[in-house]
Amino acid sequence: MADFPKLPHDFTEHTLSSEQIFKGVLLDVRRDMVRLPNGKTATREFIIHNGATAVIPLLDKETIIMEYQFRYPNHQHYYEIPAGKLEVGEPALESAQRELLEETGYVAANWRHLTTLDMCISYSTEQIAFFVAEGLTFDAHKRDEEEFLETVPVPLKQAYQWIENGVINDTKTVAGLLWLKAFG
Amino acid sequence: MADFPKLPHDFTEHTLSSEQIFKGVLLDVRRDMVRLPNGKTATREFIIHNGATAVIPLLDKETIIMEYQFRYPNHQHYYEIPAGKLEVGEPALESAQRELLEETGYVAANWRHLTTLDMCISYSTEQIAFFVAEGLTFDAHKRDEEEFLETVPVPLKQAYQWIENGVINDTKTVAGLLWLKAFG
Repeated sequence: MADFPKLPHDFTEHTLSSEQIFKGVLLDVRRDMVRLPNGKTATREFIIHNGATAVIPLLDKETIIMEYQFRYPNHQHYYEIPAGKLEVGEPALESAQRELLEETGYVAANWRHLTTLDMCISYSTEQIAFFVAEGLTFDAHKRDEEEFLETVPVPLKQAYQWIENGVINDTKTVAGLLWLKAFG
Repeated sequence: MADFPKLPHDFTEHTLSSEQIFKGVLLDVRRDMVRLPNGKTATREFIIHNGATAVIPLLDKETIIMEYQFRYPNHQHYYEIPAGKLEVGEPALESAQRELLEETGYVAANWRHLTTLDMCISYSTEQIAFFVAEGLTFDAHKRDEEEFLETVPVPLKQAYQWIENGVINDTKTVAGLLWLKAFG
């Protein structure tokens, strides 16, 4: 990362106390008391997230593999790029390779890190590392049978049209694909 | 939105039970039991979010107003576009106008909806409506004194460089600005 151009003001909030509110199978919810820059106190509620990866799998220079799956919170099916959570201690690249194989059955010869983004900065620590995967080989037997999703090849041109007209509205997918379009 | 190209498979998860785990000043956490497509059951934990807006304020055709502020979950200062949560029952456009004024002191003559994105589809219902605001007029007295942030004019060209090299890594900001770059 380039030097971060800090501005003169320091708005750092200092932790006064921290408690775990809930620890479920997925969510780890914390509530901290903080001291604001003006000396007052405030409550901060947020999710501790171990991080995730997302993969843009290029079947050829003009076609990607997307996933069609159901996401419960908004009760919708989405077109997404493959993605998943890091296991504890798992490096991001290994996690991306594992997720691509489990979800799509593809192995990739060439991997390239695009960028890493903070997903929900006001209430989650989640960071997603984005990769481009090329040189794909399909091995159906390696695919996880328990994944409820369908993989579908989508021309990049079509994907960008779907972003523009709102058919693709998953933010990680939009951010990753538009990053690729803008910066390659 | 265009017709959603549904694929043959239906992966809908049906709600069996639903309970509120935590309701704080910010987070509303739910845990549902669901029936999976294969008949098995699973737990879904997620955040109920009332929605938000984000604004790209164009000072002129080549310059935007950004905010520099501290976000507690990752303990970092970020460069962001103005954004905020909807109040209950508040229309998205009104919310965007209110947030822009409270956070930056600017009123805009022209508003245009860009897109609406689902931010964290695996564990939050949050949807952000993105707007472009033009024809800006500054009124310092309308700015909320309790906002701990600094506003800074940033050339769009500079903002895109900062996205490319990772200085700007807030996903809503990246997605919104790259959407503007790709589709105008």
